[in-house]
Amino acid sequence: MKDRRVEMVEVGPRDGLQNESAIVSTADKAELIRRAIAYGARRIEVTSFVNPSKVPQLADAEQLVAMLPDRDDVTYIGLVLNRRGAERALATGRIDELGAVCVTSNTFGVRNQGQSSAESLAAAIEIVGLAKAAGRSGQITIATAFGCPFEGEIAIDRVVEMAKRAADAGPREIALADTIGAGTPAEVAETVGRVRAAVGALPVRVHFHNTRGSGLANVWAAVNEGAATVDASLGGLGGCPFAPGAAGNVATEDVVYLLERSGVATGLALPRVVEAAGWLGGVMGRPLPAMVSRAPAFPGS
Amino acid sequence: MKDRRVEMVEVGPRDGLQNESAIVSTADKAELIRRAIAYGARRIEVTSFVNPSKVPQLADAEQLVAMLPDRDDVTYIGLVLNRRGAERALATGRIDELGAVCVTSNTFGVRNQGQSSAESLAAAIEIVGLAKAAGRSGQITIATAFGCPFEGEIAIDRVVEMAKRAADAGPREIALADTIGAGTPAEVAETVGRVRAAVGALPVRVHFHNTRGSGLANVWAAVNEGAATVDASLGGLGGCPFAPGAAGNVATEDVVYLLERSGVATGLALPRVVEAAGWLGGVMGRPLPAMVSRAPAFPGS
Repeated sequence: MKDRRVEMVEVGPRDGLQNESAIVSTADKAELIRRAIAYGARRIEVTSFVNPSKVPQLADAEQLVAMLPDRDDVTYIGLVLNRRGAERALATGRIDELGAVCVTSNTFGVRNQGQSSAESLAAAIEIVGLAKAAGRSGQITIATAFGCPFEGEIAIDRVVEMAKRAADAGPREIALADTIGAGTPAEVAETVGRVRAAVGALPVRVHFHNTRGSGLANVWAAVNEGAATVDASLGGLGGCPFAPGAAGNVATEDVVYLLERSGVATGLALPRVVEAAGWLGGVMGRPLPAMVSRAPAFPGS
Repeated sequence: MKDRRVEMVEVGPRDGLQNESAIVSTADKAELIRRAIAYGARRIEVTSFVNPSKVPQLADAEQLVAMLPDRDDVTYIGLVLNRRGAERALATGRIDELGAVCVTSNTFGVRNQGQSSAESLAAAIEIVGLAKAAGRSGQITIATAFGCPFEGEIAIDRVVEMAKRAADAGPREIALADTIGAGTPAEVAETVGRVRAAVGALPVRVHFHNTRGSGLANVWAAVNEGAATVDASLGGLGGCPFAPGAAGNVATEDVVYLLERSGVATGLALPRVVEAAGWLGGVMGRPLPAMVSRAPAFPGS
């Protein structure tokens, strides 16, 4: 029995795949989700409802959602960037939660989603309202919270201010995303601590990429500052097509290994995660970035 | 100006290369050391004086040492495992410090260096004595301090007990090595904290491999517990030929990025480290594992 616990969000089906140029079949995506449930994932970012011409990999959002296992104990998250996306997601009747994204940086916002920072925050607030009106939950992610590929450093004050305003919309949580993997643990700890203090009882979720090798150190720093939920992608797939050089998300198996051996329960079964990563490597036709799946099993893990 | 500072030890020429089957020329090894000095390294593990039939990559120890730049401000460390190795290293007249290695695990000790745990500790104590008698310094590394590939978990009590006994020999420092990259930050923090308390004023150095992705998180945990010195290998080269599956050392550029951006000065110039890693990748003929060298430069780093 572990003393501490975090919730994991499996983002492989959405953030893990969206940067892949070879289109993965809808059947394989559905299998990925079934396997994630089998290894213990109870909150899964399954797809995004965005312009299919911008993200062709996720153009099958409605078809995939129709294939989701009918599980009362699993929360399916659909990423949306505006009212139209929210309406598409809600129209499926199978998305439990809308994930909205606001960005700290105007340059990144315009390039990533055609919105300034202020426009993205307004859209996120609207999306949470639409979710709640439909009896669903909404959450807001603050992207480029630890640096922008175009603008460089992002002041923590700016992140905190956006988090406060986002919290007023009544989301389920505030997520902080290191979209380009530039963050390091001291900054992560300070940001998580200050955002937690600013948003009261609202849980803080974190999303790291391992672009510069600091991803797992950032997860650990965030969890130690009370982050309740951690995003990870099976095999360490992932990246952002509009952020130059963004490498994969932190890998589910690497995060689970680190946290479980550090006394933090994740709810995921590591051997089944590793097994699923092996299957996913076969689907992708290449070794995936995660380290634990390539290392010998360590006794007791 | 940073508030905090750690000392870096560049271990690329020894631990980085020893697992490579293609022999690197002595001239390239000397160039690697020159480049390490150029990016700021002032303490470098240059080679080991062991049986050349066991580690053919480092069979040129004496020839390499003869080519070392004559620098009063750089400490050259030679790894040795017994009296014979110590005598070889000291006979060169160019090795400033003997690095001795004792192991927590009998199984690993016998396979790695033909010594039980107790025999390895006795040899390390003897080596420090030989170094001091020759007017040089000696240091002792406790290998498999965070797990053994054969015996599994290693009790922290055992590490602490070995550290106390090693400290009595008067080494420059005690190093804790995660030989197989099994450690995670909670265990690292506890071990570093307890060893520091046990060895009084003696500095603690740490050595991590990134086998399971936790390497940088472990560096950060150790530095926060007061580790004075951090080992890293340019490009993330490295591993141990006798530890199945051991991946590379933590990469110098990834450690420098993480620490410098977290307010901890390393003395190394990141752009020059990245430049050297590019050169080393050319020598090795493949991309190296380090992440920072493959990521776009982040403004300010």
